[in-house]
Amino acid sequence: MDESLTYKDTGVDLEAADRAKRSLGPLIDASGDENTLSGLGAFGGLYAVPEGLSQPVLVSSADGVGTKLKVAFATGRHDTVGQDLVNHCVNDILVQGARPLFFLDYLATGDLDEDVVPAVVGGVARACGENSCALLGGETAQMPDFYAPGEYDLAGFIVGVVERDRILDGSAVRAGDRIIAVPSSGLHTNGYTLARTIVFEHMALGVDDTFPGEERSVADVLLTVHRSYLGTMWPLLEAGMIRAMAHVTGGGIEGNLPRVLPEGLGARIDCASWTVPNVFLQLERGGGVSRMEMYRVFNMGVGMIAVVAREREAQVLEMLGHDSWSAGEVVMGDGVELGGV
Amino acid sequence: MDESLTYKDTGVDLEAADRAKRSLGPLIDASGDENTLSGLGAFGGLYAVPEGLSQPVLVSSADGVGTKLKVAFATGRHDTVGQDLVNHCVNDILVQGARPLFFLDYLATGDLDEDVVPAVVGGVARACGENSCALLGGETAQMPDFYAPGEYDLAGFIVGVVERDRILDGSAVRAGDRIIAVPSSGLHTNGYTLARTIVFEHMALGVDDTFPGEERSVADVLLTVHRSYLGTMWPLLEAGMIRAMAHVTGGGIEGNLPRVLPEGLGARIDCASWTVPNVFLQLERGGGVSRMEMYRVFNMGVGMIAVVAREREAQVLEMLGHDSWSAGEVVMGDGVELGGV
Repeated sequence: MDESLTYKDTGVDLEAADRAKRSLGPLIDASGDENTLSGLGAFGGLYAVPEGLSQPVLVSSADGVGTKLKVAFATGRHDTVGQDLVNHCVNDILVQGARPLFFLDYLATGDLDEDVVPAVVGGVARACGENSCALLGGETAQMPDFYAPGEYDLAGFIVGVVERDRILDGSAVRAGDRIIAVPSSGLHTNGYTLARTIVFEHMALGVDDTFPGEERSVADVLLTVHRSYLGTMWPLLEAGMIRAMAHVTGGGIEGNLPRVLPEGLGARIDCASWTVPNVFLQLERGGGVSRMEMYRVFNMGVGMIAVVAREREAQVLEMLGHDSWSAGEVVMGDGVELGGV
Repeated sequence: MDESLTYKDTGVDLEAADRAKRSLGPLIDASGDENTLSGLGAFGGLYAVPEGLSQPVLVSSADGVGTKLKVAFATGRHDTVGQDLVNHCVNDILVQGARPLFFLDYLATGDLDEDVVPAVVGGVARACGENSCALLGGETAQMPDFYAPGEYDLAGFIVGVVERDRILDGSAVRAGDRIIAVPSSGLHTNGYTLARTIVFEHMALGVDDTFPGEERSVADVLLTVHRSYLGTMWPLLEAGMIRAMAHVTGGGIEGNLPRVLPEGLGARIDCASWTVPNVFLQLERGGGVSRMEMYRVFNMGVGMIAVVAREREAQVLEMLGHDSWSAGEVVMGDGVELGGV
């Protein structure tokens, strides 16, 4: 060997990592609140348990963005996947009655692109701000022979808090309760391996093409940000109007609603109570996917479900404005019956 | 198309995911403690803030295993990388004075191998048990066109707790304080892209070959589990004997010790105070890596550093037994000077 081998020779640039980390500092600092006690560079992020709670319970969830990231790679738009990630995590703890406290991200990449990393983490930070959640830290990993050039994986981790006697665990649900559907903003972050196969192979569309039946491009449709339901649902949670909530992610309504129903109770959903948005209908037609499979994979227009006492239904719908509708009821039995499909 | 397209056709098997998730249930349940309020299947994991703390501060960290995973792939041993992950995270919050409460993992894979997933998460659960940390949940993602067959990425998130007035943030460090080195168990989880290049390319070794100068195989040496310092250091932390601690990860002693030194203080390390373990010497020689680069990339035998008041040095060393040694002192100035390299 004519010269000594360095870490950088093998594709890991510690100085670039340091620069990337420093560039994230202002984003992280801006998201902090009065309970955030650490800044950038600490081994662990410090967050004081908020005062004023009698029996605080932490609610925590980990998630990724899945292959929606492939759409970000194809379009070069890296500033929205962080929002998908945060909003997904926010919804996952919201359904147990928790509000977010802080968030950490894990970004793993082959080549540490000094433009892409701040764009991705910038999206994470923006969504943290929108959800009143401190971005407490994270890890940016350089794994040169792991990820294809220009590709990365992104995962996130949220911690929220709820008073012990306000935890939503489904135990309050009774037969006859009404099921309120709250609309999704699109595919959210589920079913992208199927959706991409249909759009890019079966329908042979490119990211810049107009999506059939829409005035938006394929990129705009597929990158539509996963909606956070915190702002919509929090007033209802605070008012004690909700008996259970389910975030409609992988597995669809059938896969997620039973997670919050007690033993011996199921649900009957009237699928004729809403118009399935165009994007799902195009995917169904374009891929020749059965309607039942569509409901198993995608949210089909329902991103969040709330279970409420029958006598509160009208008031809940009024509080939600035109955003939501009555989509079914809790019944004796188990599982979810999709009627009117 | 002669038949309808399904999610499974595109490589995502929701039933396999469900089976994998259920197989992890007992592992997750076994790791729980009296504060764990949720079981498998909840959208978010529930963990009560422990009682008896006057001003509890949460300490949280995210990390990955890096390309040490490539060694797991090459050897087919998937049961130790989870331990690396947990122990790394435990150490990252320990250096701020925190003990672990709970952990979540993110496992992303192309093909959801029903043997590999439980092995990986089993390692996570085992290490959680060893560190008195509840495995509160996690995400197992199927991303078929993202990861090569048989490959996966693994990240983890930990939350611990410390009393506000017991946070170690380095502010107690004074010039003249002594630096105690605690040995690493090997490479831990840093520098693997360089280490693998040297071992598999420059030294042309296979995973089953005997590692030069060791009685262990290359696989055993490279997969040696990242040590957790919780058991070793906790009694000293509880006794208030430690002014600061640094976990020696990517960037080595030089990159990590300054993270816990206050402005205006640096450190002088006497590298002649210990014998660098064989594995690092072999990598240095095998790759023709400069000694300074070795100290920047690897821990060189020092996995944890504690800063203690000079008058407590003897007592601390006695409490640590033969595990540790005096390796330098805190000085006026900044940065870390490695003497005797």
